[in-house]
Amino acid sequence: MERVYLDHGASMPVDKRIEEAILKHMTENFGNPFSLHKEGRASKRSVEEARENVAKLISAEDKASVIFTASATESNNLAIRGVAHRNKNKGNHIITSAIEHMSVINPLKDLQKEGFEVTFLPVDKDGLLDPEKVKEAITDKTILISIMYANGEIGTMEPVREIGEIAKDKDIYFHSDCVAAEGQIPIDVERDNIDLLSLSSNDLYGPKGVGGLYIKKGVKIQPIMYGGGQERGLRSGTENVYSIFGMGLAAKITKDDMEKDSQRLKRLRDKLIQGVLDNIDEAYLTGHRTKRLPHHASFRFDYIEGESIILNLDMEGISASTGSACSSKTLEPSHVLIALGLKHEQAHGSLVLTLGRQNTDDHVNRALEVIPTTVQRLREMSPLYKKK
Amino acid sequence: MERVYLDHGASMPVDKRIEEAILKHMTENFGNPFSLHKEGRASKRSVEEARENVAKLISAEDKASVIFTASATESNNLAIRGVAHRNKNKGNHIITSAIEHMSVINPLKDLQKEGFEVTFLPVDKDGLLDPEKVKEAITDKTILISIMYANGEIGTMEPVREIGEIAKDKDIYFHSDCVAAEGQIPIDVERDNIDLLSLSSNDLYGPKGVGGLYIKKGVKIQPIMYGGGQERGLRSGTENVYSIFGMGLAAKITKDDMEKDSQRLKRLRDKLIQGVLDNIDEAYLTGHRTKRLPHHASFRFDYIEGESIILNLDMEGISASTGSACSSKTLEPSHVLIALGLKHEQAHGSLVLTLGRQNTDDHVNRALEVIPTTVQRLREMSPLYKKK
Repeated sequence: MERVYLDHGASMPVDKRIEEAILKHMTENFGNPFSLHKEGRASKRSVEEARENVAKLISAEDKASVIFTASATESNNLAIRGVAHRNKNKGNHIITSAIEHMSVINPLKDLQKEGFEVTFLPVDKDGLLDPEKVKEAITDKTILISIMYANGEIGTMEPVREIGEIAKDKDIYFHSDCVAAEGQIPIDVERDNIDLLSLSSNDLYGPKGVGGLYIKKGVKIQPIMYGGGQERGLRSGTENVYSIFGMGLAAKITKDDMEKDSQRLKRLRDKLIQGVLDNIDEAYLTGHRTKRLPHHASFRFDYIEGESIILNLDMEGISASTGSACSSKTLEPSHVLIALGLKHEQAHGSLVLTLGRQNTDDHVNRALEVIPTTVQRLREMSPLYKKK
Repeated sequence: MERVYLDHGASMPVDKRIEEAILKHMTENFGNPFSLHKEGRASKRSVEEARENVAKLISAEDKASVIFTASATESNNLAIRGVAHRNKNKGNHIITSAIEHMSVINPLKDLQKEGFEVTFLPVDKDGLLDPEKVKEAITDKTILISIMYANGEIGTMEPVREIGEIAKDKDIYFHSDCVAAEGQIPIDVERDNIDLLSLSSNDLYGPKGVGGLYIKKGVKIQPIMYGGGQERGLRSGTENVYSIFGMGLAAKITKDDMEKDSQRLKRLRDKLIQGVLDNIDEAYLTGHRTKRLPHHASFRFDYIEGESIILNLDMEGISASTGSACSSKTLEPSHVLIALGLKHEQAHGSLVLTLGRQNTDDHVNRALEVIPTTVQRLREMSPLYKKK
């Protein structure tokens, strides 16, 4: 039986339309963009074409405001550490939320060791951040606000436009980790007053190993790595030309197809959510019901462990996730679910299903056939469930 | 007429034998190695297979000692900044050479701003570092010695084994940037007492956008980026699975073919060097004549500019380099050639030819037909030459 992959939040296949372009760059158009000869100039053009495509995806007016990195993790580190270190003469306070990705939280925790002060704002039971809380947290030492566009684990979309306005009013840099949202909903850095925005290629069905960082013109930032001075001196290292070109194509395809894709995925998502909630007792949606990414369905089930659900679904040919991809191998409960106010044992029973371009109604039907029986079987083995 | 690519030091085409494996990972084996399901586990296996292949290339006994990064630039930054910051309680002195790559020199210059002291050791007129100078520079504050395996701009191979012994004797970490040497000559981190070794994939005919860092077991180092804790917590960010797998295959192919390849390239290199020196007056080899990478020929010509040579050779279908790839677009003369004792005007007239797997006798013949006439034509337009 065909496998049903419902873990696009963790990793996406590369779009077939991108493959050929990547291959061509590997063997024909393989020059170093720094080189002066034909092969070098061709690679340089490929990188600039990609830069333009990525800028268009996020509605950035100036394509030069996009630089390429190796991952959204690197982009988040560069944005946060780079702004903090460069602007420490202005202040040492940074505001973020309790449900950011670890590549935002952990650089901030490291900055705390250096003497920076970080406010981790709480969210409500659906994972929504109240913009008023951001306003209240601002001090005259605040140099940066970092709030994600949407959360990859619970699908909730944050009020970035309102937060962007607050940041602009107070003349504080606003960074947003856009990885979960990109490709799913329109992003507009100008409208949303975003100064720095982190992107990943793979979340657009582009190749892994490449990310982007939008840095609005005039933002003061310093590099986190030093070398040959590529990417306006902000990101040294020979450009990963094939993957950068692939990311550009992915951005273009995504922009063109987004409206059509998201309508289709929303329908599948709602069918999935309804089917799970209707057919399983004591099953709960995590994240906001409507302010939710179009491809994202996430749940928790009492009495059982997410890891067991994943492994059992895997045996039935369904790939899914529990918590974020990056915390799936630790025994800690997800910091995101804990921030929603859930108890440890509740947070452990989570299931995240993220739909993608290749998913069909048949896939959702298959998932709805397998998930309820899997949950029931696991519950019957659970001492907690029996006690009930 | 077929173009003749003689700039493998700047960028290499990806070996055709690696392409298919990369494609397969992009569309079929595309999971996140952190995921628990089938796709995730397959990706995890691919990364571990690559780790083993890279460890074998550098004769590392423990495959876990290799971690993957996005580039040798990142590896150099991680090795230098990571060791410096983690060991600053032991001392603040670092020893390096004046001819290192910018991704070694620039992180060191940044550390100087933080209070670290860096000794940039001089080299002789052939670019050779005297190990005695390393010994003399050591103080009781020295925590790291960073000397490249070989220089990519002049081809000179450094006495890393002797330097490794000195470092081991004094219990000081020894890091070596191996990018120019890898794939050209055998590397043995155990024999050479190397604690940290930086690698790039593309210099093995693997894909761009991936590098490696060997970190001997027990070496104290801290990350330069924080996030999901991949690669033993030292390098966060979802693993670039396709490229990592490609780098592993590249390492395997390189190891298998190195002896045969290097014999062939040495013959072509010597023919190229002899032909240039025999047919052009006032042409000089840069770098050491015999302690030299097998694929590497580099020269300087009086009276003319390297950039003009490159652009004119390009018009004749020959791709070459002047100075290092990373300095080709600045107007500064190469720091490497200046360190050899050359005057600015001498350093400006440099030509670097780096041979590769696809080069043939015909390519060398074509280069030897074109280079002398190009140099002569440019000289005839040079006011300096006319004055003579």
